[in-house]
This record gives sequence, C-alpha cells and structure tokens, in this order.
Amino acid sequence: MSEDRAVVLLSGGLDSTTCACWALREGYALHALSIDYGQRHRLELERAAQIAEALGVPHRVVRVDLSAIGGSALTDAAIEVPKDQQPSGAEIPVTYVPARNTVFLSVALGYAEVLDARALVIGANAVDYSGYPDCRPAFLAAFERLANVATKAGVEGRPLRVLAPLLQLSKAEIVRLGLELEAPYALTVSCYDPVGERACGRCDACTLRLAGFAGAGASDPVPYLG
Amino acid sequence: MSEDRAVVLLSGGLDSTTCACWALREGYALHALSIDYGQRHRLELERAAQIAEALGVPHRVVRVDLSAIGGSALTDAAIEVPKDQQPSGAEIPVTYVPARNTVFLSVALGYAEVLDARALVIGANAVDYSGYPDCRPAFLAAFERLANVATKAGVEGRPLRVLAPLLQLSKAEIVRLGLELEAPYALTVSCYDPVGERACGRCDACTLRLAGFAGAGASDPVPYLG
Repeated sequence: MSEDRAVVLLSGGLDSTTCACWALREGYALHALSIDYGQRHRLELERAAQIAEALGVPHRVVRVDLSAIGGSALTDAAIEVPKDQQPSGAEIPVTYVPARNTVFLSVALGYAEVLDARALVIGANAVDYSGYPDCRPAFLAAFERLANVATKAGVEGRPLRVLAPLLQLSKAEIVRLGLELEAPYALTVSCYDPVGERACGRCDACTLRLAGFAGAGASDPVPYLG
Repeated sequence: MSEDRAVVLLSGGLDSTTCACWALREGYALHALSIDYGQRHRLELERAAQIAEALGVPHRVVRVDLSAIGGSALTDAAIEVPKDQQPSGAEIPVTYVPARNTVFLSVALGYAEVLDARALVIGANAVDYSGYPDCRPAFLAAFERLANVATKAGVEGRPLRVLAPLLQLSKAEIVRLGLELEAPYALTVSCYDPVGERACGRCDACTLRLAGFAGAGASDPVPYLG
C-alpha cells in the first residue's frame, strides 16, 4: 500500500471513475481534478463533483478554455457529433480534442507539484480509443519523462509516475474491474450528446459503453433515450 | 525562409516579444497565443494584444485558471512577491508557477494542431531563469519528443519543432537582438508587481530587465516608479 498522494483526472465518465476507485484501492491519498475545457455539456462536471464526494476525495476544477482554439466536435458547436457509426481504431475521430490529454496531464502536473504528489492517474485506454494519439503507451511514457525534467520534485530526485491502469483493458474488462471495486457507475456519464440526464445511446461513446456492460454480463445503471 | 505556420507564446513581456519578432524574420506565418492563467495583473494580457496588433499577427487568448490550484506568488495573493533580492540561479523562486511552461506549451500544441503549424516558439531562457526547471534545454527537448507522439500531425509524420531562440542568450543579448529587430519594447511589461502602468523597478523581473538594457547600452522605454 502506498501512502503517497496522487492526482486523478476525473471527467465524470466511466473510465476515470474506475481509475479513481483503483487508485484508492492502491492506497493513494487521492485528489481528484476535473478540467472544464469548454465541453458542450456541463453534466460531466456536475457528475465528477458528485463522484468525488461519493468516494470521499477532495475535488478541484480548473478551467481551460480549449473552445477558444476550436477544432473538435466536443467543444465546437459547428462540428456535428457522429451518430450510429462503427467505432474504428484506424482514423482520428472528429470528437478528438486537440492536445487534450497533454493539456489535462499538464494541469494535473501543476497540481501534483503543489501537493507534492508522486503519481498522476489517467483513464487513457489504447484498446477502444487507439484512434487518439494521446491515449497510446508511447504518449504516456513521453509525458512521464517530460514530467520528471519539468518539475521541482523531478529535478530534485522525487520522481512522478504516470499511471494508466486501464491502458490495455477492453471496455468489458474495465466494467468488470469497476463493478468489483464498487465504482459509483450510476453517477457516471459517457455520452457525447446527452439529452437532459439521458444518454443518446447512439454516439461512439454510448456504443462502446453499452458493449462494455454487455460484455461484462452486467446492465448499465444510467438512463438512455427511447 | 520558411512559409510554415508557427505559434508563439506571447506573454506581453520582453522575451516573448523578441521571440515573435525573431519568428517573423525567420519567415513563419505567425499566430500569437496568450495564456490567461489567473495572473494578478491584467496589464500583461492587454499589452500582448497591443503587441500582436503592432506586429500584424493574429492573437488568441486561452484562459487556464492555474490560480485554482495555487502555489505561486504570481497567482496566489497570499504569497508575497520578493523585492530587492539578488536573483539567484540556485533556488526555485516563489514566483515559479507550477508546471507553467508545460501547461502553456500544451495549449500551444493544441492550437498548433488546429492550425497545422510546424513550430512552437517560446521565450524560455536558461541563463537568467535557470532556477525554473521548465526553462532548461532538457525540458524543451522532452516537450518536443512528447509533441511528436501526442498529435495527429506528429504520428502522421509531420513533426513539430519547439523553438527557443533566446535559450542561451543573456538578457543584454536578448535586448540587443530585439532592438535590431525593432521589437515594440515600449509596449512590453516585465514587472511582477506594477503600479498602474509603471514598473516597480525592484522585483526580480525588473532587476533583470534593467540590467539587460544597461548591458546592451540602451535605455528602457517603459516607465518606472519613483
């Protein structure tokens, strides 16, 4: 068991919630960080706060207005969220937010410096999201190397680790892990295009999530449209 | 001469303004980016906009609220800005903003992706600011490696360069370069603790700046207190 501090990037989604539960089981003194990056839907941030509270973990929100530079269907209202598509690992989807994980990990790195934390925990996944460059193992390894030359702690010999416990898991394996850890999945939100509190059930994120629960032989506690 | 696009991080200070002029001379189609990171003094952002306009360069501001995680005299009003100190390269000063250049370069990386730019230009300097880990050559090299596994362009074989043209220059050499490039120094602001539009003349940033102009045999066009 570690008693070190760790910062978990908590989006309010299924993966990051599973990560937070994993880090608690590992014994980290956990601090949750959410990034308000100008996402179209505010539900994610509300849920992140509720999940942190349910887990008894302190929570901060840092605003990073990525919509000021545009470029993604998730921040730019002029780009349509694709529906009813077969998710593919081959292409980079329009829901890709430019340099998203680089920016998120950088802010988490700053928070880790303030807290003198020894780990950053991120729900990156290379199986279902291999179309995103910043979800790949080479990216996470490069960020860890950067972190240890970028910071006071790093240059003073107290290294920081970047932990991505879901990196090589399928969505079904993630769901199984989360259920084992009693993750508060009813509070999570994955949908790119929710209507009120209900998930659309048709965007890439919903399709993957539903397949994950099906593969784990479980039912998803969140409400869907229709 | 390059005709590639480049993103320059423009703070409104002397170094980043010199960098912007340098990148224009190199022939880059330049886009200026300022980060509103919750700095105590808003003058920097106003001046950055004026400098971009003077140079005829498009300008964007992205808000990244680093004050939400605290930890620096530049964003946290509870920490005092040191005055009348001898700048020292040995220690990390309280004006250090956690992971500042990592966060700034990450946002610039996102903007570079949107623009399909080939270079990030940053006024990092390892001579006067060697107390800051994120101003060192090893940091910049690590960020460039990260950038090229983090982004669509990088993984598709269109690499991005991180250019820090001032890295090994003394402040006097920077001032000489900027004067040669006719940098609009009258618009720049360096002071950590200005009163209205006047620089304090006593903080580390003022002390370095004044020594730089003296070393270049020039006079600083900005107004000082007293």
